[in-house]
Amino acid sequence: MTAAQEPTSALLAEIADTGRDQHRGGYSRHLFTDAELGLREWFTEAATRRGLTVEVDRNSNLWAWWGEPGPGAVVTGSHLDSVPGGGAYDGPLGVASALAAVDLLKAEDFRPTKPFALAVFAEEEGGRFGRACLGSALSTGTVDAADALRRTDPDGVTLAEAAKRAGFDPSSFGADKDRIANIGTFVELHIEQGRYLADLAPVAVASAILAHGRWRFRFAGQGNHAGTTRLEDRADPMMPAAATVIAARQAAAKHDARATVGRLQSLPGGTNVIASTVDLWLDARDDRDEVVTRLVEDITRAAESACRDEGCQLTVTRESFAPEVTFDTTLARQLAKITGDAPIIPTGAGHDAGILAAATRTGMLFVRNPTGISHAPEEHAEKPDIEIGTKALAAVVRDLAR
Amino acid sequence: MTAAQEPTSALLAEIADTGRDQHRGGYSRHLFTDAELGLREWFTEAATRRGLTVEVDRNSNLWAWWGEPGPGAVVTGSHLDSVPGGGAYDGPLGVASALAAVDLLKAEDFRPTKPFALAVFAEEEGGRFGRACLGSALSTGTVDAADALRRTDPDGVTLAEAAKRAGFDPSSFGADKDRIANIGTFVELHIEQGRYLADLAPVAVASAILAHGRWRFRFAGQGNHAGTTRLEDRADPMMPAAATVIAARQAAAKHDARATVGRLQSLPGGTNVIASTVDLWLDARDDRDEVVTRLVEDITRAAESACRDEGCQLTVTRESFAPEVTFDTTLARQLAKITGDAPIIPTGAGHDAGILAAATRTGMLFVRNPTGISHAPEEHAEKPDIEIGTKALAAVVRDLAR
Repeated sequence: MTAAQEPTSALLAEIADTGRDQHRGGYSRHLFTDAELGLREWFTEAATRRGLTVEVDRNSNLWAWWGEPGPGAVVTGSHLDSVPGGGAYDGPLGVASALAAVDLLKAEDFRPTKPFALAVFAEEEGGRFGRACLGSALSTGTVDAADALRRTDPDGVTLAEAAKRAGFDPSSFGADKDRIANIGTFVELHIEQGRYLADLAPVAVASAILAHGRWRFRFAGQGNHAGTTRLEDRADPMMPAAATVIAARQAAAKHDARATVGRLQSLPGGTNVIASTVDLWLDARDDRDEVVTRLVEDITRAAESACRDEGCQLTVTRESFAPEVTFDTTLARQLAKITGDAPIIPTGAGHDAGILAAATRTGMLFVRNPTGISHAPEEHAEKPDIEIGTKALAAVVRDLAR
Repeated sequence: MTAAQEPTSALLAEIADTGRDQHRGGYSRHLFTDAELGLREWFTEAATRRGLTVEVDRNSNLWAWWGEPGPGAVVTGSHLDSVPGGGAYDGPLGVASALAAVDLLKAEDFRPTKPFALAVFAEEEGGRFGRACLGSALSTGTVDAADALRRTDPDGVTLAEAAKRAGFDPSSFGADKDRIANIGTFVELHIEQGRYLADLAPVAVASAILAHGRWRFRFAGQGNHAGTTRLEDRADPMMPAAATVIAARQAAAKHDARATVGRLQSLPGGTNVIASTVDLWLDARDDRDEVVTRLVEDITRAAESACRDEGCQLTVTRESFAPEVTFDTTLARQLAKITGDAPIIPTGAGHDAGILAAATRTGMLFVRNPTGISHAPEEHAEKPDIEIGTKALAAVVRDLAR
C-alpha cells in the first residue's frame, strides 16, 4: 500500500516524534505537558483543515463538529495522552482513525444528517493525576470536580494549578450535563490490548469492560542506617511491600482475576538507608465486581499480616474503582453487522467508552494487536489492519449519522 | 548549659536551615547542589574567621590549615553531604566539632607544633553519584578518576558535568599522593549510628568498620498492559524483585550479617502497566569480607531462581565494595586513654576514615546516639554528649599535634 492508501498511518506518522520518552522508550504524553499540548494543537489543526469546528469543553476535552452541535449526536473519538513510556496506538489510533474516516466519508460526498463530532478526552490514562478517564468522568459527573482539582502529580502540582498553567480555567471543571445528554451514540475505536484477535480477525466489537480499580498501599516503618541497624531492630517497610507484591499475584491466581503492582516508591530511597515509607499501587481487575472486592480484601489481609511481622503500619486507599461495564447489546450487534460480522469480545482495559456507557448508548471497535502488548513501546498494529479499522469506523458513522 | 557553653551545637544551628528536604523530612545535601555549595561556603567562612587557611584540593575536598601544611600532619574532619532525607549530625557533627575544638585550643593558647588541618571530604554518602566516600577514595587513588567522572546522578548528569557547573575542574580529579602522604594521623569524629553507646558512655573509640558494598540487581521482563495481560502470559520483573527483597533478609539472618534494599525503581512505573524493568540496590555488610561475598552469592541465586520462574532476565552489578577495616590498634588505645578510657567499639557504617586507614594511621571517635537511628530525620545526639565529644576531640588534637 502507498501512503495515500494509508491515511490513518500517515496521520499517526505526523505525531510520531511528539512526546517520545528517551528514558523509558515509547511515549510519555501526560496531561498539560508540552507533548500533550502539542497533540491538542495537531488535532485542532487537522480537524479545522477538514472543515470541522473545534471547541474545548469545560473539562479541557476537545470536540470537533461536522455541522451544528445538537441532540442525538453521533460521537466518535478516543484520547491522546499516554501511560509513562506507552505505545503509539493506545488512544491516538482512535483519534487518527476518526479524522481519516471523515476524509473517506467526504470523498464519497456523505453528509451526516445527525449532529456528528469527534471527541478527544483528557487524561484517559491517569498518567499524571492517577485517575483514569478523568476528562470523561468529569463531564459525566462520575468524579467530583473539587476532589479532582486537588489531585496532585508526582511533583506535587495540583490539577487546578496544571490546568491554569496550560491556559485552561479550572473553575469551569465539572459535570457537563447538557453536552453529555446531547450524545445519542458514542463509538470509540481502540487498539486491542490483549490477544483475542491475534489469529481471529482484524477488527472486533466490544461486549464488556472488566471491573477495575487502583489502590494505594502505604507501608510505614522506621527509617534507619542500613549498616548499623541490627535485623531484629528493624521496621523496614520494604519487607511487607515485597510480601504484598507476591500476595497480589497469588490472590489473582486464586480468584482467576488480574492484579498488578507496576509502581513502587520508597522514601527516602537511599541505597544505604532502610526506608521509612514504601508506597505501592495495586491495579486489580475481573469481570465480576465482587471478585475484585474479594481479591483486594485478600491482598490487604496479606499486607496487614506482613506489617505485623515487621512492626510496620499499613494504610490502604482506594484511588478509583470502575464496576464492570456491559456495552449496549443491540448496538454491539448492529456494529458487528455493519463491520462485516466482526467478532464481539470483552476487554480488560478501561476506556472513556466505559464511562460514557453509563450515560448514553455506547460501543467500541477494536483493531488487532498481533502480540497483545500494550502500555509499552512494543505496542503494534499492522497498517492493513489499521486501514480496515478506519473503513469499519467510517461505515459505522455512515450508518449511524445518516 | 547556655549557648556560649555549647559551641558545637551553636555551629550546627548555623546550618540548620540549609538543605532541608520538604518531601522526605530531614536534609538532602548532595554533592554540588545549592545546599552543599552553601555548606562549603559556611565552612570556608567559619574556618577563615578562626585564622585557618582554606584550600580546595584537586578532588573538591576542603582543607583548613592551622599554620603551614607539611609532612606528618594531624588531620581531623568529616563530611557535609547527606543521604536523601538524612539527619543533622551524620558528617556535620565531625566538622562542627573540629571547628569548636580549634576554639577551645585557641582559648587555652595552644599552638600545634605539627602541621594541623581540618578536612571536609566530598560525597561521603554517595547520595548523588552512588559511590560512598568518593572524595577520599579519589584522593587516595582507591577509585579511578576517569571511571568516577563518568558516573551519573539520577537525572543522567555526570560527575564531570556537575563539577564543572559548580565551578570545579574535573580534569584535576584523581589521586593526590603527596597530600595523602603528608597525613601523619587522621582522626574523624562522628555520631554513632547504632546503639552500642546508648547505656554505656557519651563517647567511644572505633575499633573497626564492617566490610560493606552495594550491588545493583536489574530484572528485565516484558512491559505490558495490567488489565489485558493474562497471568500466564506475564514476564513481570516486579515478581523476582519482590522475591529478592525477601531473600536478602533471609540470607542476612542465615549469615548473621546485614542486607538491605532501600531503593527500588520500576520502569515505566505506571499504575496500570506491568513493568518492563525493575532495578533494586542491595546494601550488604558483615565484619568478615568472605561472609559478605557468600551473602550476596546466596541472594543472587535466589534472584536467578525467581527470574527463571517468571521468564525474566537478571543482571547483577557490583557498584562498590569496601573490605573490613581494622583501625590502628595502638592509636585506638591512645585515643581511649586521652578521652578518659572511652570504650572501643566496631561500627557497621562506612566512613572516609575507613578509606584513609589504608593509607595512613587513622582512628575515629563516636558520640552517643540515644536511639541509634541514623540516615533518617530522627537522628539525634544530646547537647551535653556533643560537647563532651568536642572536648575529647580537642584533647586528641592537643595530644597528637603538640
